[in-house]
Amino acid sequence: MKLLEERIRREGTVIGDDVLKVDMFLNHQLDVGLIDEMGKAFYEAFQTDGVTKILTVEASGIALAALTARYFGVPVVFAKKAGHRNVGTDLYTATCHSFTHGTDSTICVSRRYLHEDDVILIIDDFLADGNACNALRKLISDAGAKLAGIGIGIEKGFQPGGAKLRAEGIKVRSLAIVESMKNGNIVFRSDDAER
Amino acid sequence: MKLLEERIRREGTVIGDDVLKVDMFLNHQLDVGLIDEMGKAFYEAFQTDGVTKILTVEASGIALAALTARYFGVPVVFAKKAGHRNVGTDLYTATCHSFTHGTDSTICVSRRYLHEDDVILIIDDFLADGNACNALRKLISDAGAKLAGIGIGIEKGFQPGGAKLRAEGIKVRSLAIVESMKNGNIVFRSDDAER
Repeated sequence: MKLLEERIRREGTVIGDDVLKVDMFLNHQLDVGLIDEMGKAFYEAFQTDGVTKILTVEASGIALAALTARYFGVPVVFAKKAGHRNVGTDLYTATCHSFTHGTDSTICVSRRYLHEDDVILIIDDFLADGNACNALRKLISDAGAKLAGIGIGIEKGFQPGGAKLRAEGIKVRSLAIVESMKNGNIVFRSDDAER
Repeated sequence: MKLLEERIRREGTVIGDDVLKVDMFLNHQLDVGLIDEMGKAFYEAFQTDGVTKILTVEASGIALAALTARYFGVPVVFAKKAGHRNVGTDLYTATCHSFTHGTDSTICVSRRYLHEDDVILIIDDFLADGNACNALRKLISDAGAKLAGIGIGIEKGFQPGGAKLRAEGIKVRSLAIVESMKNGNIVFRSDDAER
């Protein structure tokens, strides 16, 4: 998605060789016009996949998920980070390792909001090693629901998450794939490449 | 807002005399159509107030803030709960007491995203004692920005937050005000009453 790539190039900050900060438009300050366009792109990619619900994880996936859900006309469920919220005890849970923070956390969803007949689109702002996606997939699997696919804002193509998910036959659509960002120079995977 | 009041009456769960759970449509599962209507109502209430930015706090305010911001065509900034995020060190911070969880937490916003010339609309899902709003007001005040007003999904009218804010002359618009919920019976403040 050219609009997103241009924005990353213009305003993204590379720290070291593998951290990309985009908190001026995607996950602290939110450019809602851009995020709405991203939601529309996800709708175009997954509109024929029978999506009944969108699943994300708090906090930075929520805006993208909500603006995507408007196009689909389906609800969002956001997984909560366990331990600090009154979400009840009747939960699906999964462990998620954070690449950025180097910590493990537990995420959870109330059993009331994921059902066997749901066809679920996972939406998240970033994909790196795939840990958040795999934790969300476990929640979906525990509920007996079906995964429609995964929509990602920015994929770090130099980390293995996206390749592993695609190798499993999962439909993954990343709106921008960063191939490398050595020395602060951001290179995107070409639009011609297989996504 | 009748649509919201009806939804609370139909699906809200009262716990004790003062906890109202609406996690089936507002803060765990999200009814994006309803939340979009709420955003439109905030736009109608604040469209002439010169709003340049919407400020909320993670996680449950984000969807409402993002869908509201679409109508205004302005960015959202969401305050983060400190300690677990790489938001940098150049921060505005405030302490916030949680009524629901009985704990104090620190919220923060990068100084890059609140400016002296900003006119800020605070959006949040709930207003009870006003602690989250007051913490967000401190961030705005520290930045030297101006407060346009406060838009709230559900106000607990039997707790003092809303009355205190209005007594200070702040424009507060709550889309549903719960007057009482004794014995699980939810009574809304009448539409005729002063809001």
